[in-house]
Amino acid sequence: MTASPTYGALTTQGASTNIAWHHTSVDRAARAEQRGHRSAILWFTGLSGSGKSTLANAVNSALFEQGLACYVLDGDNIRHGLCNDLGFSDADREENIRRIGEVAKLFLDAGVVVLTAFVSPFKADRDKARALVDPGDFIEIHCAADLDVCEERDTKGLYAKARAGQIQEFTGISSPYEAPEAPELRIETGSSSLEDCVAHVITHLQAKELIPAQGPS
Amino acid sequence: MTASPTYGALTTQGASTNIAWHHTSVDRAARAEQRGHRSAILWFTGLSGSGKSTLANAVNSALFEQGLACYVLDGDNIRHGLCNDLGFSDADREENIRRIGEVAKLFLDAGVVVLTAFVSPFKADRDKARALVDPGDFIEIHCAADLDVCEERDTKGLYAKARAGQIQEFTGISSPYEAPEAPELRIETGSSSLEDCVAHVITHLQAKELIPAQGPS
Repeated sequence: MTASPTYGALTTQGASTNIAWHHTSVDRAARAEQRGHRSAILWFTGLSGSGKSTLANAVNSALFEQGLACYVLDGDNIRHGLCNDLGFSDADREENIRRIGEVAKLFLDAGVVVLTAFVSPFKADRDKARALVDPGDFIEIHCAADLDVCEERDTKGLYAKARAGQIQEFTGISSPYEAPEAPELRIETGSSSLEDCVAHVITHLQAKELIPAQGPS
Repeated sequence: MTASPTYGALTTQGASTNIAWHHTSVDRAARAEQRGHRSAILWFTGLSGSGKSTLANAVNSALFEQGLACYVLDGDNIRHGLCNDLGFSDADREENIRRIGEVAKLFLDAGVVVLTAFVSPFKADRDKARALVDPGDFIEIHCAADLDVCEERDTKGLYAKARAGQIQEFTGISSPYEAPEAPELRIETGSSSLEDCVAHVITHLQAKELIPAQGPS
């Protein structure tokens, strides 16, 4: 140990003025002030094929073009990574949503508008994710396309397989979808244009003053 | 369904020019261009009390003050959240580090310089985290304070408990710490000032052109 202030000495003398600078609190408030916008969790929920991922990615692009910090969590980057140890049993589905909620909370803390796009069919699981954060931080967005529209689209061919019995417990077919009773937003993704859906979400974020009308300066 | 382009129709006609705008690729390259810096995983590893969290937070503050997107993952926000189902068995420690690696990868993808501060004593686990991302994206930083220095600090009183047999399998006492053989950075957190340690890390990031010398314009 030298006579000059060392790392160890500093650690145990937290009030030492010469290291006060590194105790700068980098919290959500500081990030929001620097970035010019608040963070939030935009939780898209709906049937397979209802357009959650498409809408979330379109909103993400719109936010990015405004210069805002934003990121989409969806099956592509979660099921193949963080949750690649989970299957589709009830317990695993619940754990899947729990982890997504926790990761979304980290992004929220990091000052990022985080958009999650998962079927998340059970109210209890969504409510647990909501309960992780403060009121106003969690914006539940119901992509409310009707089942027949989703099944007609069947973009991934999953409904056909579910009808043929090749997929067990498929939401909407052989497993329930518990629609949100009072989501912050209900978007008619079965009948509205994508542009209108995006505008609906962005207008809400602006009205709640989460993001500026014209992006940060 | 109306005659105007609907959400469903758009989804199945991806080449339709009137929705091309929303297919903007918001990838790491786009984020780096907009933000003026690249993202990376700064993986701090070392004994308890070696100063991982203090150094990671100090570097984070320095990056934040430059206006860069950055975030610290540490025990405070991981063990109480995403990994609150895990204990300290070998299997659980491994799963803990696996999840942290996967979450760090998400932040990397989101354009954020993410700093992880965990003991992460086993080389195999650290190497798995490294293998998740491309070469250059993972910067292993060994906080190389000697065991006697860490134990003398004992900022959390954990070494005393471990010596008293009140904590089983405590790294450095009753469980091994596998020091990195070829980390990108080895920081003498036992004998150097915190300012010097921070400067060491920042200089490396600048030399690798991950961040600009003066922050983004």
